[in-house]
Amino acid sequence: VPFYRLTLAYDGSEFLGWQSQREEGRTVQGELERALARLARGQRVPVAGAGRTDAGVHALGQVASFELARSLPTDKLQRALNALLPADLRVLAAAEAEAGFHARRSARSKLYRYELDCGGVPLPQRRRFAAWIPGLLDEPTVQATAALYLGRRDFASLASTGSSVKTSVREVTRSRAVFGERGMLYEVEADGFLRKMVRSMVGGLMAAGSGALSVGELERRLAARDRRLWPPPAPACGLTLVRVVYAV
Amino acid sequence: VPFYRLTLAYDGSEFLGWQSQREEGRTVQGELERALARLARGQRVPVAGAGRTDAGVHALGQVASFELARSLPTDKLQRALNALLPADLRVLAAAEAEAGFHARRSARSKLYRYELDCGGVPLPQRRRFAAWIPGLLDEPTVQATAALYLGRRDFASLASTGSSVKTSVREVTRSRAVFGERGMLYEVEADGFLRKMVRSMVGGLMAAGSGALSVGELERRLAARDRRLWPPPAPACGLTLVRVVYAV
Repeated sequence: VPFYRLTLAYDGSEFLGWQSQREEGRTVQGELERALARLARGQRVPVAGAGRTDAGVHALGQVASFELARSLPTDKLQRALNALLPADLRVLAAAEAEAGFHARRSARSKLYRYELDCGGVPLPQRRRFAAWIPGLLDEPTVQATAALYLGRRDFASLASTGSSVKTSVREVTRSRAVFGERGMLYEVEADGFLRKMVRSMVGGLMAAGSGALSVGELERRLAARDRRLWPPPAPACGLTLVRVVYAV
Repeated sequence: VPFYRLTLAYDGSEFLGWQSQREEGRTVQGELERALARLARGQRVPVAGAGRTDAGVHALGQVASFELARSLPTDKLQRALNALLPADLRVLAAAEAEAGFHARRSARSKLYRYELDCGGVPLPQRRRFAAWIPGLLDEPTVQATAALYLGRRDFASLASTGSSVKTSVREVTRSRAVFGERGMLYEVEADGFLRKMVRSMVGGLMAAGSGALSVGELERRLAARDRRLWPPPAPACGLTLVRVVYAV
């Protein structure tokens, strides 16, 4: 049975996320499965996504995997899907995958980025892809907070309730902010992420960078493994799944 | 009578332009005049814009001018307008202006930029602010074409029909393209622009950069002052009015 792997970009503004909690509404997985069913002559093709992005979260390098009953040239697959999919969801690349390849389970790490617009007035051009807070955050404090997240840690304080994962320990290998003239870009890479973990990380950066909580206080609350103590997650619109890394 | 000057940013995707040719539909000028009328207790406040951007064209630094019957602190004016305006139109700055200031007639020069997404597949994140053509244009040819536009020239070949301006001579002081990994940014500054002139300039860059027309041929067609000979204008969505310069 042929296995396939797609690299996807989407503007998440008008999606209810990768998959919907409710069984209604427009989801990335739903649009993809609908297009694949048309290529597979009505047969249902279940798709796995590397990251189950929430409603409003974007992707530049989401990865999806599935099996097809019959083999299809990958350039033809890409073109056919892009002809069937809506303009806010594009297949950037299609490739054959080894048997058993699974976009989420085979992933080694994922890179997310979060954009903040810190101008005095939110720029209309950025409103779909950046969250707005008036005024720049304090850079040294933000970087010190970003450094708290590095390494192998229990992120229970940053997990959304309702997660059903076995462990909340994750290894963060990159966590840094880049400051610009009127905003901030935060990049974080880990072997996996809990539900709303990146947005909670950014919530922590915002709380410390605005002076609401000290870095030391955030460190204690991170160690407490109690999500009720952690600042609320930052808005979904600022978040983009940039890249998923697999073992060669 | 107090004169005011606003710096505006807008996502032009859902506007019929600065002003509508038809008297119906959503325009930047219309939204602004409606908000100002509310501040002026129902009195009509005619607004002048530095650049009459077309439908789908964006702005990061459009300038608008108007008079008010009574004086208003500029920070209050900015806040009140932003509270009344839709999210795709923001007042970035408000200032008092000298008597007789007129956003268009007082302008010395304007800077526009045009974005091209040249990836194999159009990126959903850029679809509102960049026009897509598959594959990069030839950089030396594009730069040679951009250089054709520099200086004081008659741009009759690049003016849209229906322009009612007296002269089609304009002085272009900047015209250059910056190439990136999967796209191109073109910047052009002049003392004024004819209708659809920037988009026609980009149409020329695309015709030459893709090999459809030689630079020499474009030069002849520019000199011919006949718009029927010029390639079609590039799509509106790639264009942004970046800055308007006034004499101090």
